[in-house]
Amino acid sequence: MSSGKRSIPASKKRSRRRSKSCSGEALPVPGFRYAGVHCGVKQAELDLAMIVSEVPASVAGVFTQSTIVSAPVTWCRPRAAAGRARAIVANSGCANTALGERGERDAASMASHAAKALGCSADHVFVASTGVIGEPLPMAAIRSGIRQAGSELAANGLRKAAEAIRTTDTFAKFAGVKASINRKTVTLAGIAKGSGMIEPNMATMLSFLTTDVAASPAYLRGALRRVADQTYNRVTIDGEGSTSDTVLLLANGLAGNAPLRSARSPGAARFEAALLEVAEQLARMLARDGEGATKLVTVDVTGAKNPKQADRAARRIANSLLVKTAIFGRDPNWGRILQTIGAGRVEVKLPRVEVKLCGVPVFRAGSATGRRARDRAEAGLAADEISIEVHLAAGRSRARIWTCDLSYDYVRINAEYTT
Amino acid sequence: MSSGKRSIPASKKRSRRRSKSCSGEALPVPGFRYAGVHCGVKQAELDLAMIVSEVPASVAGVFTQSTIVSAPVTWCRPRAAAGRARAIVANSGCANTALGERGERDAASMASHAAKALGCSADHVFVASTGVIGEPLPMAAIRSGIRQAGSELAANGLRKAAEAIRTTDTFAKFAGVKASINRKTVTLAGIAKGSGMIEPNMATMLSFLTTDVAASPAYLRGALRRVADQTYNRVTIDGEGSTSDTVLLLANGLAGNAPLRSARSPGAARFEAALLEVAEQLARMLARDGEGATKLVTVDVTGAKNPKQADRAARRIANSLLVKTAIFGRDPNWGRILQTIGAGRVEVKLPRVEVKLCGVPVFRAGSATGRRARDRAEAGLAADEISIEVHLAAGRSRARIWTCDLSYDYVRINAEYTT
Repeated sequence: MSSGKRSIPASKKRSRRRSKSCSGEALPVPGFRYAGVHCGVKQAELDLAMIVSEVPASVAGVFTQSTIVSAPVTWCRPRAAAGRARAIVANSGCANTALGERGERDAASMASHAAKALGCSADHVFVASTGVIGEPLPMAAIRSGIRQAGSELAANGLRKAAEAIRTTDTFAKFAGVKASINRKTVTLAGIAKGSGMIEPNMATMLSFLTTDVAASPAYLRGALRRVADQTYNRVTIDGEGSTSDTVLLLANGLAGNAPLRSARSPGAARFEAALLEVAEQLARMLARDGEGATKLVTVDVTGAKNPKQADRAARRIANSLLVKTAIFGRDPNWGRILQTIGAGRVEVKLPRVEVKLCGVPVFRAGSATGRRARDRAEAGLAADEISIEVHLAAGRSRARIWTCDLSYDYVRINAEYTT
Repeated sequence: MSSGKRSIPASKKRSRRRSKSCSGEALPVPGFRYAGVHCGVKQAELDLAMIVSEVPASVAGVFTQSTIVSAPVTWCRPRAAAGRARAIVANSGCANTALGERGERDAASMASHAAKALGCSADHVFVASTGVIGEPLPMAAIRSGIRQAGSELAANGLRKAAEAIRTTDTFAKFAGVKASINRKTVTLAGIAKGSGMIEPNMATMLSFLTTDVAASPAYLRGALRRVADQTYNRVTIDGEGSTSDTVLLLANGLAGNAPLRSARSPGAARFEAALLEVAEQLARMLARDGEGATKLVTVDVTGAKNPKQADRAARRIANSLLVKTAIFGRDPNWGRILQTIGAGRVEVKLPRVEVKLCGVPVFRAGSATGRRARDRAEAGLAADEISIEVHLAAGRSRARIWTCDLSYDYVRINAEYTT
């Protein structure tokens, strides 16, 4: 489906790795302490993170929807449903997945070792592991890491914890906000890691959110589910999903507000807006730091027949290798956008469809808008942040997905590393 | 989800383009003539193919399932349903897609121009266009190409016709067989082109099959549908589907066999086996010649709960960027295979799952089979043809998909060309 060779500057032919560091604030949250240490799962980098609440906290979690899940996910799910947490222990470098009973034992041992150090129940310790599948956790290293992390916990340790859960991430991801909830100042701060295998419905993605708001586990569960659906679950890098995806939200109540018990509680809307803000910041960082990414791409579909079709169209565009390589090559190729929507059997009224690239209409009323528009769109594609907007003219539903382009570096990273 | 850097030979880090030319026989089919010419849609290569039957032929077609289709597909669909054909005219370099009424007019004009030259009805001329979306066909060039092709038609012209429909294909694809149907020798020969945007349910894929068998259009439709489902529709390169996919089967009856009228007609099973053989040869060539491909990968899933789950698991594996880049990097990474199956929410009994790479079991009974098996699988991945076999242990259904690996060249081809 290709013929005319375009001449493009040689500089475009190589993946350029801009500095993508764009994390937000590492706010201390009252009652929480954080650590990130090197214990030896990886060769040299920080590889074990610990997050501890001084007092028992409410907790909510959302997890991978894969039919094959890591031992840590198996450990966390029922405990998140129970609603109480004191700590999170997470390592990078090894996923503790596909190891049968040994994996389950190691996850439990990770939790009980931390529980002993903190003097709490192992059922209140959440664990997460990310890295190579199929190799057992080096438990001696993990145990010594837990001891060391326990001794290094600090109120301002969020950034180091974010460092310690990185795998192929090029920068540590953290964000925080303050909000006033019923005249109390509430702080919310979180970390996340990507960066390949990210896709709708959770992928190799970990994110831990901490706040001093007072809230019931039931309320937190609903709020986290709604926010995750609008943020983490709207990021896709390569259409993959992992065995280990975990988002945990711990709320220790030290802000002293009247506890949030439902979405209708006074202050709940404000809290959820704050949660959305932090989660969206982290989600955009995940997309921007996709493996090999040179650009953050926001896909907006409007005019879909129904929400499902809107979602499918946006995900088709975001996951299309042809669209992603065109963005990498700065090619305002609306034909590939239409083609992938059509292949997804999404209903469109082609004579009324509009496609905008970087704000420039390049397809409208059934045909291309001309050379000048194309040139302006091509110039726009030089930016670090790209928008793709498609109006399907088939209804009133809309959807947004964040993704990145596909470069030589994606292939290099994934052909040369064992994950 | 990655950490340990593996040291791999520098030679692996570059896409190596082996000679992939592996076409079959260009058999002449009694009563058919073929041509491939350069008319100026492309700069220098052959860009217009013509296939003509001396006598009216039965025809069947299968087409893209996209909701956005090219003008040629719109032209062909009702005429394939009518069941009669004399000729096919196809160009590469321009897809005649997303051009509104102008595109429809140009497709009709292409057909009527050929009809005039051949002295038949335009309704018996089928057209196909592949190449850039959104740019109008250069009709003066197309018309002169049709005149020229008409004067160059030859019984042994199949290979040139195959050349003329190439886009990013690295070699011309053709195949042929002879079969004895009710004591008459029947010849079947066809051509195809890929090679990006190939995916289940047709993609930018054209294939034209010619035979001298005597058969009713109704029988041909059923046979082609069944065969396409087992061949063309089981190839995926990048999970994309195009607006233009077309497979046409013309049967002119000159073999003089008692006409095949249904799948139960004597000789029908033999003919369908021959059709399957040619279509499978072409389908494997499409996979082997995927954009940037260095390897042909055959994915076999067994033990699925039902046919749909078998198909989904095989397609997940075949379309997984992580699996495809691992194959390119010769990494026997069964973890990525399990991960993408799980992410597709395919049911598995993990303790009884088996994964084989190049015939070597690398995962069995809930865990890895060890370093030695891994080394043998890694050695196997050096071959040009790779097999991935997964037993899900959840039922009795199976599915096969052909695909290729994902290399730097895929990114280069698609970042640097406008399709």
